[in-house]
Amino acid sequence: MAINIPNLDSILAAHQALKNQKPLVQCITNSVSVNFMANVLLSAGASPAMVDNPEEAAEFVNFAQGLVINLGTPTSALVEAMQLAIQQASHLKKPWVLDPIAAGALSWRGQIAADFLSFKPTVIRGNASEIIGLAGLGANSRGFDSSNDPAHSVEAAKSLLDHASAVSASGEIDHIVAKTSHETGEKFWLAKIKGGSHFFPLVTASGCSLGALVAAYTSVTDPFNAVVSAHAHYAVAGKKAHLKTDAPGDFQREFINELYNVTADDFEQYLEFSVEELVAA
Amino acid sequence: MAINIPNLDSILAAHQALKNQKPLVQCITNSVSVNFMANVLLSAGASPAMVDNPEEAAEFVNFAQGLVINLGTPTSALVEAMQLAIQQASHLKKPWVLDPIAAGALSWRGQIAADFLSFKPTVIRGNASEIIGLAGLGANSRGFDSSNDPAHSVEAAKSLLDHASAVSASGEIDHIVAKTSHETGEKFWLAKIKGGSHFFPLVTASGCSLGALVAAYTSVTDPFNAVVSAHAHYAVAGKKAHLKTDAPGDFQREFINELYNVTADDFEQYLEFSVEELVAA
Amino acid sequence: MAINIPNLDSILAAHQALKNQKPLVQCITNSVSVNFMANVLLSAGASPAMVDNPEEAAEFVNFAQGLVINLGTPTSALVEAMQLAIQQASHLKKPWVLDPIAAGALSWRGQIAADFLSFKPTVIRGNASEIIGLAGLGANSRGFDSSNDPAHSVEAAKSLLDHASAVSASGEIDHIVAKTSHETGEKFWLAKIKGGSHFFPLVTASGCSLGALVAAYTSVTDPFNAVVSAHAHYAVAGKKAHLKTDAPGDFQREFINELYNVTADDFEQYLEFSVEELVAA
Repeated sequence: MAINIPNLDSILAAHQALKNQKPLVQCITNSVSVNFMANVLLSAGASPAMVDNPEEAAEFVNFAQGLVINLGTPTSALVEAMQLAIQQASHLKKPWVLDPIAAGALSWRGQIAADFLSFKPTVIRGNASEIIGLAGLGANSRGFDSSNDPAHSVEAAKSLLDHASAVSASGEIDHIVAKTSHETGEKFWLAKIKGGSHFFPLVTASGCSLGALVAAYTSVTDPFNAVVSAHAHYAVAGKKAHLKTDAPGDFQREFINELYNVTADDFEQYLEFSVEELVAA
Repeated sequence: MAINIPNLDSILAAHQALKNQKPLVQCITNSVSVNFMANVLLSAGASPAMVDNPEEAAEFVNFAQGLVINLGTPTSALVEAMQLAIQQASHLKKPWVLDPIAAGALSWRGQIAADFLSFKPTVIRGNASEIIGLAGLGANSRGFDSSNDPAHSVEAAKSLLDHASAVSASGEIDHIVAKTSHETGEKFWLAKIKGGSHFFPLVTASGCSLGALVAAYTSVTDPFNAVVSAHAHYAVAGKKAHLKTDAPGDFQREFINELYNVTADDFEQYLEFSVEELVAA
Repeated sequence: MAINIPNLDSILAAHQALKNQKPLVQCITNSVSVNFMANVLLSAGASPAMVDNPEEAAEFVNFAQGLVINLGTPTSALVEAMQLAIQQASHLKKPWVLDPIAAGALSWRGQIAADFLSFKPTVIRGNASEIIGLAGLGANSRGFDSSNDPAHSVEAAKSLLDHASAVSASGEIDHIVAKTSHETGEKFWLAKIKGGSHFFPLVTASGCSLGALVAAYTSVTDPFNAVVSAHAHYAVAGKKAHLKTDAPGDFQREFINELYNVTADDFEQYLEFSVEELVAA
């Protein structure tokens, strides 16, 4: 799908399309996230399917509208299922999202993630240090510093656009990069979305589940708008939930409520979003 | 156990027996459901045990009062554990429940489910399309149409009574079929229970956990009454929870509360239940 | 670390150290507990990491400050990961906690637990019957009776001090034993902490997650104080949560809130704690 520059209208249109189409999202993910991720997708308006064994993973891609591959707790069987699903998604030109948890820190999954990159994920989503770590795995590793601030991962994210159509580093302010192609060459873009709550890092699998929501959105809009819309949906629901709570147990419950409840008005009222051209230094 | 026609009194008696006996239910289930299922059983009054490896599954059947086999996210090791547990349950004549998630849609698990059918589950529980899909796997497949309305799955459910003592298709109105044997031949029965909330499909594993609750009830009453009582317990708790909530995060929490809180008075006030003889068309 | 006799001041100091240091705790645990355990650690102030495959388990121990090994739903791959992680923790002299779920009841995991004991866990945590069962697995089995009352497990717990620095049996009143070495020989100690709520047994994985919190505390204080502080943190949060709720769904949420919220004042107000010398009968 051709990449356009997202704005509030394109985000609202994607959100409405998600609600209408209820895309079926195949999740091959870690054991910590599997239940919360399914509930996030259901509340947000999508349909989850955790078909993650090597015997069925590729067959199910035929039915799925989106796919998320999350490296949180890989096992040899899970990795085999991932490989088969990715190959089938590539073959069918279906969108898929790579969430490279800790790929830069642990050697086995680092190899796996580097291999997966060659299959060209539609989107890569991680936190800042994961994006930096993943970029460092490539053949032309540039040795990025590790950091938790997404602003420090923009160069790493940009380098990953060799493999993916859009790359997101989430954090206090989510940073999302993509490029557009023009007759005069490529342009690089950076979208920023202010995250909704400091409680997110205290709810396990909230980042992983955002990756699944990105996969849901990739089935209804172009990759850049998909990543921005998923992060916007998350940030707005998170902000509304945060206003009602002051501890992580309540936040988790209210966040699920608000993923379900958010309206176009909420996006207009709560979303803090900007997009700018990234000019080479 | 001889099958009787359930009524409010038999449901209340089963609920009281569950609370008193706290049956130990072995769950070999999918990764999405494992935590929620355990909490559902605990709140409802049973004791869960997720012993699901091939090394211990059969040994644990010796201690368990009921067993649920759920095909949501099968792995080769999990399937081996299921086979061993089912064989031991058959050998010891302990009740077990088959939840054939997506068995009609995916070929590998379809084979597995067909194999499990030959071990005669006490109860089969699924949604309408799963019951239809499972019935279509048998040697004499009658090619039922796929549908989400349990009313359309009654013929499929009835055909599965060749293998199981009772079959349930859950949905907006749960449909449960069973047969009784008489000197003059067999009679077929259809029980209907109005489900408690449209939020159930937005809480992942709520259907799977109902299958586990059916397994709990099979240890305290006959199979038809067990299925009806478990669905009644669910529907009444769901209706009470629904009255207090308007979003899925809250519903999930209140449902766990109400599974624990429901009283005989609640069954009398909220249960919408009927049973009729099924006459061949 | 040398063992001291815990008191309110040492508990408060450990709690403050946990909040300041946010120790990274590697959890190799059962599938039921994995999500709740991560949220418990996050709310309490630690950082969870569920790195549990054989390819990475030992490598991650290099980064972890504490390790918990939980035998709830072992698989052959998980057990291999546990063995590798335990060996590396022993090699690096990093603290680790053994949670021997059902080790006395099932033969396969009984062998595994007995093998793990030889690697000298820093702490063993279980419920009373698990502590009794584990003690019965040793070469000099003394055939302890099974029981759910921690008071009946004190002799079993004491015998396990041959392998571990501190042993806890949790229940209505948690019983924790440890020994100190003096010029004149050894002294044995028994700490008791009144548990916070009768809803704990209705929230699956609440015991498992306590084991992970013990592992977190072992990285900031000596083993006896670590066990006592983790149990105290749990009991105080549980008591505060219990005051606000009357059903298990609400209790689970409030408990996560209170793990996050508890203050030094709360410990002073709610903790019911005693420690005494254990004199041989």
